[in-house]
Amino acid sequence: MTRFGKREDSLGEMILDAATAAVADAGYDEFDAVYVGAMNPEGFLDTANIASVITDYLGFVPAPTLRIETASSTGAALFAAGFHAVASGDCRRVLIVAGEVMSRVSTPEATALMAQVIDSDERRHGATMPGLAALVTRRYMMEYGLTREELALVAVKNHHNGLHNPYAQFQKEITVEDVLNSRMIADPLRLFDCSPITDGAAAVVLSAGRGLARVLGIGQATDLVALQMRNDLTHFPSTRLAAAKAFRMADLTPTEIDTAEIHDAFTSFELIGAEDIGLFPHGGARRALLDGETTPEGRYPINCSGGLKARGHPVGTSGLAQIVEIVLQLTGRAQYPYPSHARIGLTNSVGGLATNNLVTLIGAAE
Amino acid sequence: MTRFGKREDSLGEMILDAATAAVADAGYDEFDAVYVGAMNPEGFLDTANIASVITDYLGFVPAPTLRIETASSTGAALFAAGFHAVASGDCRRVLIVAGEVMSRVSTPEATALMAQVIDSDERRHGATMPGLAALVTRRYMMEYGLTREELALVAVKNHHNGLHNPYAQFQKEITVEDVLNSRMIADPLRLFDCSPITDGAAAVVLSAGRGLARVLGIGQATDLVALQMRNDLTHFPSTRLAAAKAFRMADLTPTEIDTAEIHDAFTSFELIGAEDIGLFPHGGARRALLDGETTPEGRYPINCSGGLKARGHPVGTSGLAQIVEIVLQLTGRAQYPYPSHARIGLTNSVGGLATNNLVTLIGAAE
Repeated sequence: MTRFGKREDSLGEMILDAATAAVADAGYDEFDAVYVGAMNPEGFLDTANIASVITDYLGFVPAPTLRIETASSTGAALFAAGFHAVASGDCRRVLIVAGEVMSRVSTPEATALMAQVIDSDERRHGATMPGLAALVTRRYMMEYGLTREELALVAVKNHHNGLHNPYAQFQKEITVEDVLNSRMIADPLRLFDCSPITDGAAAVVLSAGRGLARVLGIGQATDLVALQMRNDLTHFPSTRLAAAKAFRMADLTPTEIDTAEIHDAFTSFELIGAEDIGLFPHGGARRALLDGETTPEGRYPINCSGGLKARGHPVGTSGLAQIVEIVLQLTGRAQYPYPSHARIGLTNSVGGLATNNLVTLIGAAE
Repeated sequence: MTRFGKREDSLGEMILDAATAAVADAGYDEFDAVYVGAMNPEGFLDTANIASVITDYLGFVPAPTLRIETASSTGAALFAAGFHAVASGDCRRVLIVAGEVMSRVSTPEATALMAQVIDSDERRHGATMPGLAALVTRRYMMEYGLTREELALVAVKNHHNGLHNPYAQFQKEITVEDVLNSRMIADPLRLFDCSPITDGAAAVVLSAGRGLARVLGIGQATDLVALQMRNDLTHFPSTRLAAAKAFRMADLTPTEIDTAEIHDAFTSFELIGAEDIGLFPHGGARRALLDGETTPEGRYPINCSGGLKARGHPVGTSGLAQIVEIVLQLTGRAQYPYPSHARIGLTNSVGGLATNNLVTLIGAAE
C-alpha cells in the first residue's frame, strides 16, 4: 500500500509502488493476469482504458488485464473477481491493484463526481452522498438513542488508531470537541464524521498456492439504489446478505472474528456495518462503542488501522486497502495496536450508498 | 440484443430489452450474479455506480453485481469475467449485460471521450483514435500493396452483410464510390471506413449447465499503450497472443473456424484481425477479400452480421454483441446470410488502439 493522502505522484507511480511491495512479499513477479480497480479515472484524471495503461506502466504487457468498478466498494469487488479467476483454474497467479487520485480536481468537482453514484432522481432533487448518509445517520440516532457526542467517539477512536499507521492520511488524535466544532457537512454529519478526499493505491497477489494469508470467504449483495425505496434506513441488507454468504463459505460465525475493518466513510456507517455483519444486535454497536469493546484491546476490535476515517478513502482503493490491513495484522506486521492473537479478519466494503456491499474473510496462513 | 443505432430510450431500458430476450432463451430468471459492461457511462451519461443501477433496474437486487471495463473490448472482457465466475464454481448462472449510450453527447464530446482511451502523450500531441488508426492503415497499405479502393471493399462487404440484420444500425448497401466520396476523417480513413457512434445493448446468460452454445476457448492479451513504442504497426500482437491462448484452450486451429466476427471499428482492422487470428498469412487478407473468401459464402466468412461497421459500435457492447451474433448463427437463428453448417465461431474484440484484445471461441451445443 502507499501512504494515503494528497499526493503529487501519478496514479501509475502510486500503483507501481504498491505493486512492487506486493510482488516482493509474494516472491515472484510473473502473473497470469493483472486486475485493476479504479472508480472513476475518466472523471478524476481525464484518463480511460485504465487497465491497459496501468498494466503497461507496471511492465506486465502482454498479460491480460481488466478494470473492475463498483463505486466505493471497487477494491473489494476487484479482489472477489481476482479470486474467481484463480478459483476457476484459468489463472494461477493474479496481481490485484487498485488506485484512485481524487485530489487533482476541486472539492466541488469531486463532490459532483461522487454524487454521480447515487440515485439520479434523488440527485436531481439536490441530494449528495453525505446528504443521504446524513438521513441514515439521523434516523439511526433516533431509533437507537445514539447522541451526537457518542457518534463522535467513532471518529475519536479511529483517529487514535490511525496514529501509528504509516499509511494513514491523518496521524493525529482528535477529541469529541474537535468533531463537534468541525464544519457542518450535512446535519448531523460534520467534517470529522466524513472520510476525506484521498489519493492512494493498494496491491495484493492472489495465487492458487500457499501465501501469507488465505481467502476464507467472500460475500457480496446489492440493494435498491434509491434510498427512498428502502424499508429501513438504519441497516444495510446488502451487508447482511454479503456477510451471511461469506460466513457460510468460510464455515465461520461472527463471534469467531478477531479483527474487522469496517467501511466508515461516515462515522455512523461503522456502527451500522458492525451490526449488519452480526457482531452486535441492532442498536448494540452503541453500547459496544461506549464500553470500549471495539478498540484494539476490546472483544471486537474494529478499524485498528484507523479505518477510512483516518487512513483516508481513495474510493476505488479502500476495499482492497482494508484487506491489506487485515493481512498486515494476521502476519504480525501492522505497526499500530491490533490483537496480536488474530487468526481471522473481516473486511466490509460499502459501494455507493450501500447499494453494492462486500464482506471478505481472511485467515492466517496455516 | 437491441437494435443498434441512435436510440431514444435509456441505458436501463435498452439493457432490460436485451436481458429479457436472453432470459427467455435461457428459460430461467434467477442468477447468482449480474455482470455489467459499460465503457464510460460516467462521461456519456453522467451516471456512475452503473452495475448497481442496472441490477436494480432489471429487478435482480440483491444479486451481486460488478462492472467490467477494458475500453472498446469491454463486452468481451465482461464475458471472460463471467466465465471465470461460473468456472470457479462460485456461480452456476450469471447474467451478462453490456450497454452504451453514446448519442446523448455531441460528436466532438464523443470523440474527446474516446480519445481518453489512447496514450496520453500521443493525445497531447493531437492524436485521436481515428488518427492513430489512420497511421496503422497507411502503413498496412504500403507494406502489403493494399489500394484505397480495395480497402473500401471491407465496408462494402459489411454493409451488404448488414442489410438483413435486424439489429444493425445501417441496413443499406454502399458502393466503393460511396466510401471514396465520403468525408475524410483521418487520411486515408474516410467516414465509411469508420464504425459509427451508436447506442445499443446486448445480453448473454452463462451457466454451468447445458445451453444453446458452449464456450470453447477464451484468450486475452495486452500491448503497449503508446503506438510509437511498438515494433510493428501493421499487426496487433495482443490479438495474436489472445488467439493462440483461445485455440490452445479449445484444442482447435484457425482452419477449423466456420464463421468469425472481427472487430472492424476501422476497415483495415478487419484485415489485420483476420491475419492476427491466423486465418491468413501477413498481407494475405487482401487476396482473400478480393477473392470473396470472407463473404458468407466464402471459405472464411467474416462479419456475416455486418460487423461493427454496419451493426454499429456502442463501445462497451460490441464485444458481447459479436458473441450474440455467433450464437445466433450457430443456432440457425441469424436472419442474414451465414454459413448454415457453422459449428465453431470466433470473435475478436479490440480494446483501445489494440492494447487489450480478446478472442473467444464458441461452439454449437453438443
